[in-house]
Amino acid sequence: MIDARLDLKRRERLGMVEAVWGEHKTAEQIITILERFSAADELGLVTRVSPEKADAVLAALPAVKAHAHARCLTLGELPAPPPGPPPVAVLSGGSSDRSVVAEATLALSCHGIAVDPLMDVGVAGLHRLLDQLPRLESAVVLIACAGMEGALPTVLAGLVPQPIIGVPVSVGYGISQGGRTALEGMLASCAPGLTVVNIDNGYGAAMAALRMLRNR
Amino acid sequence: MIDARLDLKRRERLGMVEAVWGEHKTAEQIITILERFSAADELGLVTRVSPEKADAVLAALPAVKAHAHARCLTLGELPAPPPGPPPVAVLSGGSSDRSVVAEATLALSCHGIAVDPLMDVGVAGLHRLLDQLPRLESAVVLIACAGMEGALPTVLAGLVPQPIIGVPVSVGYGISQGGRTALEGMLASCAPGLTVVNIDNGYGAAMAALRMLRNR
Amino acid sequence: MIDARLDLKRRERLGMVEAVWGEHKTAEQIITILERFSAADELGLVTRVSPEKADAVLAALPAVKAHAHARCLTLGELPAPPPGPPPVAVLSGGSSDRSVVAEATLALSCHGIAVDPLMDVGVAGLHRLLDQLPRLESAVVLIACAGMEGALPTVLAGLVPQPIIGVPVSVGYGISQGGRTALEGMLASCAPGLTVVNIDNGYGAAMAALRMLRNR
Amino acid sequence: MIDARLDLKRRERLGMVEAVWGEHKTAEQIITILERFSAADELGLVTRVSPEKADAVLAALPAVKAHAHARCLTLGELPAPPPGPPPVAVLSGGSSDRSVVAEATLALSCHGIAVDPLMDVGVAGLHRLLDQLPRLESAVVLIACAGMEGALPTVLAGLVPQPIIGVPVSVGYGISQGGRTALEGMLASCAPGLTVVNIDNGYGAAMAALRMLRNR
Amino acid sequence: MIDARLDLKRRERLGMVEAVWGEHKTAEQIITILERFSAADELGLVTRVSPEKADAVLAALPAVKAHAHARCLTLGELPAPPPGPPPVAVLSGGSSDRSVVAEATLALSCHGIAVDPLMDVGVAGLHRLLDQLPRLESAVVLIACAGMEGALPTVLAGLVPQPIIGVPVSVGYGISQGGRTALEGMLASCAPGLTVVNIDNGYGAAMAALRMLRNR
Amino acid sequence: MIDARLDLKRRERLGMVEAVWGEHKTAEQIITILERFSAADELGLVTRVSPEKADAVLAALPAVKAHAHARCLTLGELPAPPPGPPPVAVLSGGSSDRSVVAEATLALSCHGIAVDPLMDVGVAGLHRLLDQLPRLESAVVLIACAGMEGALPTVLAGLVPQPIIGVPVSVGYGISQGGRTALEGMLASCAPGLTVVNIDNGYGAAMAALRMLRNR
Amino acid sequence: MIDARLDLKRRERLGMVEAVWGEHKTAEQIITILERFSAADELGLVTRVSPEKADAVLAALPAVKAHAHARCLTLGELPAPPPGPPPVAVLSGGSSDRSVVAEATLALSCHGIAVDPLMDVGVAGLHRLLDQLPRLESAVVLIACAGMEGALPTVLAGLVPQPIIGVPVSVGYGISQGGRTALEGMLASCAPGLTVVNIDNGYGAAMAALRMLRNR
Amino acid sequence: MIDARLDLKRRERLGMVEAVWGEHKTAEQIITILERFSAADELGLVTRVSPEKADAVLAALPAVKAHAHARCLTLGELPAPPPGPPPVAVLSGGSSDRSVVAEATLALSCHGIAVDPLMDVGVAGLHRLLDQLPRLESAVVLIACAGMEGALPTVLAGLVPQPIIGVPVSVGYGISQGGRTALEGMLASCAPGLTVVNIDNGYGAAMAALRMLRNR
Ligand SMILES: Nc1ncnc2c1ncn2[C@@H]1O[C@H](COP(=O)(O)O)[C@@H](O)[C@H]1O
Ligand SMILES: Nc1ncnc2c1ncn2[C@@H]1O[C@H](COP(=O)(O)O)[C@@H](O)[C@H]1O
Ligand SMILES: Nc1ncnc2c1ncn2[C@@H]1O[C@H](COP(=O)(O)O)[C@@H](O)[C@H]1O
Ligand SMILES: Nc1ncnc2c1ncn2[C@@H]1O[C@H](COP(=O)(O)O)[C@@H](O)[C@H]1O
Ligand SMILES: [Mg+2]
Ligand SMILES: [Mg+2]
Ligand SMILES: [Mg+2]
Ligand SMILES: [Mg+2]
Ligand SMILES: [Mg+2]
Ligand SMILES: [Mg+2]
Ligand SMILES: [Mg+2]
Ligand SMILES: [Mg+2]
Repeated sequence: MIDARLDLKRRERLGMVEAVWGEHKTAEQIITILERFSAADELGLVTRVSPEKADAVLAALPAVKAHAHARCLTLGELPAPPPGPPPVAVLSGGSSDRSVVAEATLALSCHGIAVDPLMDVGVAGLHRLLDQLPRLESAVVLIACAGMEGALPTVLAGLVPQPIIGVPVSVGYGISQGGRTALEGMLASCAPGLTVVNIDNGYGAAMAALRMLRNR
Repeated sequence: MIDARLDLKRRERLGMVEAVWGEHKTAEQIITILERFSAADELGLVTRVSPEKADAVLAALPAVKAHAHARCLTLGELPAPPPGPPPVAVLSGGSSDRSVVAEATLALSCHGIAVDPLMDVGVAGLHRLLDQLPRLESAVVLIACAGMEGALPTVLAGLVPQPIIGVPVSVGYGISQGGRTALEGMLASCAPGLTVVNIDNGYGAAMAALRMLRNR
Repeated sequence: MIDARLDLKRRERLGMVEAVWGEHKTAEQIITILERFSAADELGLVTRVSPEKADAVLAALPAVKAHAHARCLTLGELPAPPPGPPPVAVLSGGSSDRSVVAEATLALSCHGIAVDPLMDVGVAGLHRLLDQLPRLESAVVLIACAGMEGALPTVLAGLVPQPIIGVPVSVGYGISQGGRTALEGMLASCAPGLTVVNIDNGYGAAMAALRMLRNR
Repeated sequence: MIDARLDLKRRERLGMVEAVWGEHKTAEQIITILERFSAADELGLVTRVSPEKADAVLAALPAVKAHAHARCLTLGELPAPPPGPPPVAVLSGGSSDRSVVAEATLALSCHGIAVDPLMDVGVAGLHRLLDQLPRLESAVVLIACAGMEGALPTVLAGLVPQPIIGVPVSVGYGISQGGRTALEGMLASCAPGLTVVNIDNGYGAAMAALRMLRNR
Repeated sequence: MIDARLDLKRRERLGMVEAVWGEHKTAEQIITILERFSAADELGLVTRVSPEKADAVLAALPAVKAHAHARCLTLGELPAPPPGPPPVAVLSGGSSDRSVVAEATLALSCHGIAVDPLMDVGVAGLHRLLDQLPRLESAVVLIACAGMEGALPTVLAGLVPQPIIGVPVSVGYGISQGGRTALEGMLASCAPGLTVVNIDNGYGAAMAALRMLRNR
Repeated sequence: MIDARLDLKRRERLGMVEAVWGEHKTAEQIITILERFSAADELGLVTRVSPEKADAVLAALPAVKAHAHARCLTLGELPAPPPGPPPVAVLSGGSSDRSVVAEATLALSCHGIAVDPLMDVGVAGLHRLLDQLPRLESAVVLIACAGMEGALPTVLAGLVPQPIIGVPVSVGYGISQGGRTALEGMLASCAPGLTVVNIDNGYGAAMAALRMLRNR
Repeated sequence: MIDARLDLKRRERLGMVEAVWGEHKTAEQIITILERFSAADELGLVTRVSPEKADAVLAALPAVKAHAHARCLTLGELPAPPPGPPPVAVLSGGSSDRSVVAEATLALSCHGIAVDPLMDVGVAGLHRLLDQLPRLESAVVLIACAGMEGALPTVLAGLVPQPIIGVPVSVGYGISQGGRTALEGMLASCAPGLTVVNIDNGYGAAMAALRMLRNR
Repeated sequence: MIDARLDLKRRERLGMVEAVWGEHKTAEQIITILERFSAADELGLVTRVSPEKADAVLAALPAVKAHAHARCLTLGELPAPPPGPPPVAVLSGGSSDRSVVAEATLALSCHGIAVDPLMDVGVAGLHRLLDQLPRLESAVVLIACAGMEGALPTVLAGLVPQPIIGVPVSVGYGISQGGRTALEGMLASCAPGLTVVNIDNGYGAAMAALRMLRNR
């Protein structure tokens, strides 16, 4: 009765592959969709895939590659990034933010963009961030991930002139459980020109960075 | 007893002038601050100034210019934009969004950036937006303002490849009063790579666009 | 000590069978209730039944039919729909919305109403919806299911004149987890005359459509 | 700089006139828009207009008609409804709901639809509603407005088979102030097939009723 | 290091035994507490005990009695209720509310109060409630439990003069998941003199009824 | 077009007069309603009437009595309370709660019930409450009003055995502005058998007390 | 009928004068209360007094002193602070926070404690704060006030070892309007050992500092 | 690719060891981090570690000590507290709050501070708290933990003059589930000078106490 209508023209319109949201789909739905991407000669990227679901997909499609930290699957060759310093730096407040950083990094890799990662530079120990400012200079776009109170992108946006994409992370407890406090703190930021994506949305931050890199 | 500590080095660090948040300041505080900007030979921009407060400031400082639609004050000459098509397009869902559009436009003017405005292209009459797609092609960055359910930036992000900054607007009533529904809809967008700023934050959207234009 | 008081006169009053809400009932409670429907010669429909609970009920009552996608049970013959084009079209934004679409479709089948399904026509790839507009013309009522920002029913309501019932779906994460963002976006819609039901309420949307079809 | 793009093709597409949301527009914006509707020979309807703004518009455009209870303006002749019993009944829980009832009634009048009003039939005195059930029989669609806990549409939907559009009203205080409790109660209704619109959205309920009447 | 300080004087001050909140305690903590109640010759009542925890407690203290529907444990003899019609009626909207009804009933039994249960008299089929009104006449206090939109206590409070304690139940989904919509609907009730307790608080409703029965 | 349907049989069914909610009604609506109560020989009670509206009503109906602290109007003779100690004590946490206390007191007076008021016995200075415990002994029902964190009814319910009706008051700021924190604190109370009404609902607390006094 | 029960023993128990919450009291209530403080030879402090109310109180009690920035009244001599560096530093993110800083400062003055104010050291221009770190060394307790995203206390708590009391300020708009975002950000802080008070609660922060100074 | 940047200078700056947030880290990440603390000769403290994760860490690092009640791990010798009465008292409302009390106690032990625990002194049986007041006199700082309505710190702050740190606990159900009601009640407290930390934040309360003890 029911069918998926893939957006295979997305690369043409937007310069992006369609990523498939895996969390609310069954392994069977994911397998069918990946086969159709493959038939259309398009790179397949599936996000938010649990380890169990990943195993079920790999059993059916051994050419699929599972990216454990990023909780993603890909089918097809990732394009090699051009030489030179990575145009995107991805920062994170703590090492608990790892999967969001990994999702953003993989989504950029799917489009041939390299990433410079700076983990655990949260504002509770400010020197860790201030020490890294020179390293940030070569980046064209910054993605800053933070949970709890989410102050990292705010502090960063007061220090450097590049575009900064804040990614609130669902790390925390009590009032910050689920990432809303980090999200709202980034939106309310007193620093000028910070933009924000949904909680844990590493993929969205990567696509926003991709749009910004068009202008180089 | 109490004093304001202006961030006069912001232009050097970030390429931006410091904008002063006028809503919770008295006319006296604003006057003092503008005088200090002027003394430092820096352009002064004050946002969220009510008509009454604007009148009080102008009475004391006749060189100040009031921008009624934008609810802003400026002191000092605005730089002339370079020739060529405006690099930023500002779209809005309805003509009620006027003051947010005007704030974004003025904040860009303060930095010598011209804007192409497209008002009242909301998704309830989709043809109004589809008709304008060719006109958007020359824009480097898009700012899309919308109240109520805030679907305009989502639809736009599915159609064009540029960076899109969604600005939720506090136009609406009941469940959408205050702009949270528009904000959350933009953050939850199924379209890839949309970024978002705070409700009614025309100034912040402008500064984000400015950061993105550095890369040209 | 405790007893269920079935609403067996609902068909007479409202032209509907009573659906039983299965989620917070034990298999034993469901079995007793289905036996009583059967004894009263009424079609039995139970919604929100987990696979485990469904198995327990089928073990006791082999005549029961389990509808896996819809997470429902029925006992008794479903009426055959009359010939002709289906009077209801059910659209969905993504293929993750499958169980809500299936619940609505089954609830209509229980009343002899056929459905035309249009899955995965979300607004991030607008052409998928615009392509299907002619097919929608023969529908008397539209049910539009969408998660995340829930913009599909809004866009639809600006394009076609039929009654449209928006069903927010609990597909999403972060700010849209649980479906509230989709719900509030549909309620705040700038498109005229969209009505809305509870999150994931496929059953309710079907019953609303049934009420609207009385007038044909 | 800025302009309104009226949706003058709405009647053709949807069989409706475009209503203008007056609350966040200035009198000047409203006057310009009404003049353009008039120039296009289309009926003009403006909702949520304060008495002061209405006076300012009437001073400029004496042909405009102000509807005080409905807080609306119209410009142009309202079509006469056809003979026969009104196809829409509008019920309300208390006499405080008057302006929402009036907005719905006027919006239907603009499309030639007559209304049967039943005010103050709230569930705290149930006999007032039960007494009126026979009178409801001739209605094709019911619009039920209620503030506070908003139980009226739920009780009604258990009693009669027609389509029922619930309109939560922002009457109440404390926990029900602003109408969210009424809204959520209607959405959570245990009665089958109730649909809901935004708080105080008399206009939207009317347009939904209009869509449902197409099928007669 | 750590110890529980039982409130063994509660019966003297308030005429109630102390109930122990079991949900966040380990089986070991519950066993120790019950032994101390028993040593003090006081009836022990523990609420919100999962089946697994109940088994662990019963293994250590075989004299404990588990009440499965009520999810409670007792240790000690329950007092026999005096002859005559039960002074408390407990109504519920659906048969999913069973455990809340059972908790209230058991807590009253611990104080020698008998209960008349009326299950599944929800407002979606109003006749089920109206039919039972005569049976309610002999009750001194009514406890009305309802999930979803929670309209039952409101309708009841418009019909009968006794004290009515509304108990919102966490049965529902989407907007009503967790019971807040039922709670807020009861608090916002347009019916006069309804009082409310926390979601699922059958124990609290029973203790409130006990306080009200002192005056007989 | 529109009419109020008074619930004149409320005294017969519930032993109460119908109170009219004045906040969202015009002076004209209130005047008409009071005239109809008077014509039916029933006591008229209108709550939440602003001073300006009260003046307008009194100008038209000089027999009306305005109760400034309670923000209410009455028309008709209040019944004299029977001799003996007042059966209801009304406590409040601070002297800012005065209007809620006054509304409850007046609503009881309309039914011939006398009240013992204990103002400003909040828990920040606990001795003020502990000193008054003997005075509370003769009360049959207690109404406890508190804003901010709303702890007064909780502390009280641990100390005395009577029925206690908690009334959260919209006194406070920041997190407690509007009274929700007081409301939720009362609902979450660890003290057994406290019941609660809506924020500022002095009238509802009074009607609940009236129901409880039936049993004496 | 109604009376205020002042907590005149607060100085003895807690070492503090009772502050009177002025916002929800009439000028008449405030006058009576101040007279009673004066009669008891106690310093009177009233917070949250609007300019109009302050004028009315001063007209009746000319010995009262109005503190305009702090929105407070005092009656009686403030104790002179001992010589030496001020033990409390009060920092604020922007000059819009002035009234909260002033309330905290005045409340400490009422207890003979001097304050070192550091205004406008928000994190958007981090150098302004880093420059002042040496000046903070002599402070025993820090009070840090911030609106918008409220990151100042978090950054501070990662840099200095003293007790830090975070005061969220209701400066901001959209998502940060009302101060909740600042509050939640401070509570969710990743910096160790930050404590927080209610939004705009300068008085409470001062009293917390006073408690901490007891230990010197 | 990714690395943790420990804040090993925290002891120097703040007099505290860095605690590692264990909940969102894998056992592998925790093992690596503890090894690096050990290599730097710093005490390692990891909070929020599930029993399973603790087992995995202990298998790899047998020198690690697991603290079951506190759900924490330590690596390295805890400093012995100096002789004399414990400077910190930790109170809790019920015995369900045990793990929060234990986390606070352990975090203080890591810094050589002893604790006097007072469990189960909740306000529903006030005498339990009043009886212990003399014992509290020797404490320099109080930490008060409470779930449900969270009134314990408020009552305490009205009785004793020391600094009080309120810790809301996620014990409760319905409206108080998750601890927000306790948190908001503490923030809204009418008692002067109470400060608050995040829900369940025993660690943060301990670090705040440590800051306050610097001044002795
Ligand atoms: N999936 C569903 N969604 C919404 N409402 C439902 C659903 N299933 C049953 N109901 C309604 O919930 C009411 C209460 O259910 P019950 O608890 O089974 O008596 C029924 O009368 C149905 O109208
Ligand atoms: N099921 C329940 N619902 C509401 N309150 C309860 C329940 N069970 C126990 N309580 C109350 O919770 C308080 C705290 O419980 P405990 O943590 O056991 O000391 C007890 O004094 C009871 O009054
Ligand atoms: N500005 C303020 N912020 C927080 N609490 C306050 C403030 N002013 C007074 N209070 C407290 O509020 C309590 C209740 O005030 P009142 O209603 O005047 O009895 C007083 O005892 C004070 O402790
Ligand atoms: N149980 C806890 N509660 C609150 N904060 C904590 C807790 N454990 C660790 N932290 C803080 O969280 C910060 C970030 O942790 P991490 O992700 O391990 O770098 C640490 O620097 C600690 O200050
Ligand atoms: Mg770290
Ligand atoms: Mg328009
Ligand atoms: Mg898709
Ligand atoms: Mg009425
Ligand atoms: Mg049922
Ligand atoms: Mg007081
Ligand atoms: Mg500044
Ligand atoms: Mg206990």
